[in-house]
Amino acid sequence: MAVGLGSFPAIPNISGVRFAVVEAGIKKASRKDLVVFEIDKGASVAGVFTQNAFCAAPVRLCREHLLQSVPRYLVINTGNANAGTGKRGYQGALSTCESLASIVGCKVSEVLPFSTGVIGEPLPTDKIVDVLPNALASLDYGNWQDAGEGIMTTDTRPKGAYRQFEVNGKHYTVGGISKGAGMIRPNMATMLGYVFTDISIDQNVLQDLLKKTTDKSFNRITIDSDTSTNDSCIAVATGAAGNEKITNIQTELGLAFEQAFTEVMQELAHAIVRDGEGATKFVTVQVVGAKSQEDAALVGFEIAHSPLVKTALFASDPNWGRILAVVGRAPIADLDVDRVNISLNGCLIVSEGGRSDGYTEELGQAAMNPEEITIVIDLGVGECKDTVWTTDLSHEYVTINAEYRT
Amino acid sequence: MAVGLGSFPAIPNISGVRFAVVEAGIKKASRKDLVVFEIDKGASVAGVFTQNAFCAAPVRLCREHLLQSVPRYLVINTGNANAGTGKRGYQGALSTCESLASIVGCKVSEVLPFSTGVIGEPLPTDKIVDVLPNALASLDYGNWQDAGEGIMTTDTRPKGAYRQFEVNGKHYTVGGISKGAGMIRPNMATMLGYVFTDISIDQNVLQDLLKKTTDKSFNRITIDSDTSTNDSCIAVATGAAGNEKITNIQTELGLAFEQAFTEVMQELAHAIVRDGEGATKFVTVQVVGAKSQEDAALVGFEIAHSPLVKTALFASDPNWGRILAVVGRAPIADLDVDRVNISLNGCLIVSEGGRSDGYTEELGQAAMNPEEITIVIDLGVGECKDTVWTTDLSHEYVTINAEYRT
Repeated sequence: MAVGLGSFPAIPNISGVRFAVVEAGIKKASRKDLVVFEIDKGASVAGVFTQNAFCAAPVRLCREHLLQSVPRYLVINTGNANAGTGKRGYQGALSTCESLASIVGCKVSEVLPFSTGVIGEPLPTDKIVDVLPNALASLDYGNWQDAGEGIMTTDTRPKGAYRQFEVNGKHYTVGGISKGAGMIRPNMATMLGYVFTDISIDQNVLQDLLKKTTDKSFNRITIDSDTSTNDSCIAVATGAAGNEKITNIQTELGLAFEQAFTEVMQELAHAIVRDGEGATKFVTVQVVGAKSQEDAALVGFEIAHSPLVKTALFASDPNWGRILAVVGRAPIADLDVDRVNISLNGCLIVSEGGRSDGYTEELGQAAMNPEEITIVIDLGVGECKDTVWTTDLSHEYVTINAEYRT
Repeated sequence: MAVGLGSFPAIPNISGVRFAVVEAGIKKASRKDLVVFEIDKGASVAGVFTQNAFCAAPVRLCREHLLQSVPRYLVINTGNANAGTGKRGYQGALSTCESLASIVGCKVSEVLPFSTGVIGEPLPTDKIVDVLPNALASLDYGNWQDAGEGIMTTDTRPKGAYRQFEVNGKHYTVGGISKGAGMIRPNMATMLGYVFTDISIDQNVLQDLLKKTTDKSFNRITIDSDTSTNDSCIAVATGAAGNEKITNIQTELGLAFEQAFTEVMQELAHAIVRDGEGATKFVTVQVVGAKSQEDAALVGFEIAHSPLVKTALFASDPNWGRILAVVGRAPIADLDVDRVNISLNGCLIVSEGGRSDGYTEELGQAAMNPEEITIVIDLGVGECKDTVWTTDLSHEYVTINAEYRT
């Protein structure tokens, strides 16, 4: 199941970024399960990673390598998360980097490894190392859909997005891919997102922008409240567009880039929600009238994590009592229940803490029928707001997770 | 579905407590859906209630009445929660109390009202008031199973427990009933628990004991993380046993009572978990080696709320990677992943943060097959511990909650 996903977008070549997608046979045979990106020298690369204390071996290595070098290669396998694998897992990720570096003649720290799939199984490092020469020989400007497919796990579709914009006669492209359908409640990044651009931008400015934008995209989606061990999001700016390097985002070019970058990040994050495990609804939870943005986010996530709200969404049931019960237990101070208003797709159901006078079951049912649902909760006590995106909880989610080993 | 529930226990009469169970036709016809308890004068009565800010009208009224009087009557309806019903809901609960008080000639504040069922629908007060004379005329020492059945909603079985003990040749009884199967993550009490005893105990001592014991029983269970709007737990001590009134729990009789009372409270709480919506497993999550009891409880609840852990439990899948991922994202300070040990029903699966050397898939599978699963998580950084009880997440849970209006 997936909600409102169209076809994969026609992401254009991004100058300075080549890739290869090959079969390593990590979990399944005849599946392209390894993606290698090659980035031209002179690029800026920023990364954000999971805050899960049990982060995967490749996440630890990424953090170390980013402190030492600007990456030239990203190597991503699906089928095995290389998480909960201890020292052997770390050695496996390191061996992958060493092998790649020796073939192309770069530093080991110029390679970033990424893994996604089952947690706790030993990484079949040999299978990856064996196909690296073939992968490196076939690096090219290719079809981004292949790269999107090469990093999928329980995803039913590849996920990509791009924007192009023009400032002072120069043309720029921002494009990327993401994956994820379960164990999704990113904390500082999602598993996995890769965004590329040909713009020239300072490394620190890119890192700041990535952090800020992640909080408006991947860090505001949740499918099942479970933060992955492998979440990673990487932004690569090759500089091939030849603009004067952006050193301050508060310029015409900087702001145009921020807008395009934010839109690509949000589209990639939404694509994960739309392909959420078992999803039949794409749900936007807007909390407004809060005393702080933190309060708004807390209430939004409580709604998005409630099994009772999510099963009601699955049933297209305007069961507003469950939403109200969640707001009532949300861990925020100063909740005034008599000021709370709640609407579903524009239909006011709760007014001043009780059922709205004009509300009828027919209106509520009509509001709940579409695939896309927007829940607006007005706390009525302040001016702050935040938005969280999520899915419903369906039989298919249980089936997938009772059968699949994350 | 229900896990390991036996037949309803043979709870004896508790001197000073009579009850009636009648049909009011609140939601369904031909269903005994109203229970009235009559308590002799001179009893001590203690109560704890939901911390949900959107607490139901009867909960507000209970709190007010308990400040004014020692209750003589408890009136409990199922089929309608009288929550999210605003001023009209409050008036409905009050009318119920007024009607009962006028029939028996007691103060309105000596009546406590309780409701459970659908949230947000107007309470059919007339239906309740109409059957009160009949109910009051039939008050008697009756079959406790009838009372247990009279307060059920999505419960598949009535829930009861009792203990009897002897101190210095005197015999005492503690017995009670509870209900609940979904929207269960009690916060200060569950929806609903009633415990009765013939012991004589000071009101304040009973209230303190109820609070303390709730934190070891109802406040340590969770089915779906959703705290109800109607949670209430009431303890009634009639004093009919004729002992010298307990004014200090640290006496031989006080401690014997505390033990019996705690066991009854835990058995009633466990009965709710065993009858959790769609439950196929009864899961005990013990967190030990924590720096504080709060940390232990936080980790325990994170495990118990994780949809990925719960679906793995449903599949009897020893998917320890998911448990480890949850520990890694738990909001506690000072987590040292290299000290974490995890076992499933005595089978050590994670040792020092990684897969245990002696672990095999066969051992894990054998450990996960029983209906009753104990997960022990040793954080390895302190001496504190706590225990949480929960269920798995099954297709049946989704079916029940996609079809039922809470």
